[in-house]
Amino acid sequence: MSDRPDPGPGTQPPDFDAAFRDKLRDLLLWRRDVRRFLGTPLPDGLLEGLLAQAALAPSVGNSQPWRFVVVEDAARRKAVRDDFEQANQDALAGYSGERAQTYAGLKLAGLDKAPVQLAVFADRATERGHGLGQNTMPEMLPYSVVAAVNTLWLAARAAGVGVGWVSILHPGRVSQILDVPKDWHLVAYLCLGLPEEEHLEPELVRAGWQDRADVSEFILRR
Amino acid sequence: MSDRPDPGPGTQPPDFDAAFRDKLRDLLLWRRDVRRFLGTPLPDGLLEGLLAQAALAPSVGNSQPWRFVVVEDAARRKAVRDDFEQANQDALAGYSGERAQTYAGLKLAGLDKAPVQLAVFADRATERGHGLGQNTMPEMLPYSVVAAVNTLWLAARAAGVGVGWVSILHPGRVSQILDVPKDWHLVAYLCLGLPEEEHLEPELVRAGWQDRADVSEFILRR
Repeated sequence: MSDRPDPGPGTQPPDFDAAFRDKLRDLLLWRRDVRRFLGTPLPDGLLEGLLAQAALAPSVGNSQPWRFVVVEDAARRKAVRDDFEQANQDALAGYSGERAQTYAGLKLAGLDKAPVQLAVFADRATERGHGLGQNTMPEMLPYSVVAAVNTLWLAARAAGVGVGWVSILHPGRVSQILDVPKDWHLVAYLCLGLPEEEHLEPELVRAGWQDRADVSEFILRR
Repeated sequence: MSDRPDPGPGTQPPDFDAAFRDKLRDLLLWRRDVRRFLGTPLPDGLLEGLLAQAALAPSVGNSQPWRFVVVEDAARRKAVRDDFEQANQDALAGYSGERAQTYAGLKLAGLDKAPVQLAVFADRATERGHGLGQNTMPEMLPYSVVAAVNTLWLAARAAGVGVGWVSILHPGRVSQILDVPKDWHLVAYLCLGLPEEEHLEPELVRAGWQDRADVSEFILRR
């Protein structure tokens, strides 16, 4: 994280040289979905610095629809964790045989130890952006919030902070627990903290759940 | 872009030092939605390198649902552009007075000159990931594709390539034009190419459409 002021308008763009591009690729390679955290708190101000970087993400019509809720209250945290446990049991019931056994052995959330829990919402009622770009694709509002989450994730990893995205939750229930405005739509519930371990391979690859495919399988020409 | 092989498993993670973190923040600051392109083609292999980096994005259950369609055919490109023109006329009709005048003056797509057009879909029928994390939030599949788009965007900017996201399109119509499998859901239609100009301020800020707010307005504690 940097405390340098933003360069002023008219400034020449920096040179993103080969050394930087290599390290950016390393960052992408080493970004993991982290579910195992040291319980130690993050240094003061670090989270706020990461959120400031997240807010540099692209958003449809510059609508900046991201709303960040730092979840600190123990009772609310417990209610979210209870919802996760319920949703996770329901999900397990959908698998059978070996797949169910593997699923049951996965650790799918860091809600037990992550020092920071962050719920990220899309404000569907925002007037910022004046609706531009949303007419035929109203989903651009939550998509903009996903871009902020991904940006936060990369900035966090660069600062040595692990992020895990918990999607085994009922979004409506989480909104209720956190008592947010009715037009806020839950996009992501994140755990943040120092990771127990660093890995190059995703946990789901290491656990035998799902391998990586080569990108060439995903490219078509038309 | 780097042609270095991936570091092997067990390798120690790189040190993302203060100089790198400062430059990463510069990258976030200088990433723009670009609609004004030089028409020159990208160097051979550059796009494929960017797509390989996009595929390092997080995805729910490691489902890797991103499907990249490089749109090259002139008739298909024209059909997409026609759809944009129609959707843009419809959108303009929703504004009045000064706001309508400002809207009419905006350049909202680089479909005229961008050398690369890339449609990015979510494969809703993929079996990769075995449904993990999608039970209560099926939108995690398109969200994963947005993470890949955002990752592509940053890798492109680092390589000097501008990206613009065109959302003023009818997704169903674009899927039809591109003749993709029925379970593919359009997430993003992107223009890529060398930008005419570099800017620190978003085009919509410069055009007086929508200013940036301070991130502190978007943070709550619960």
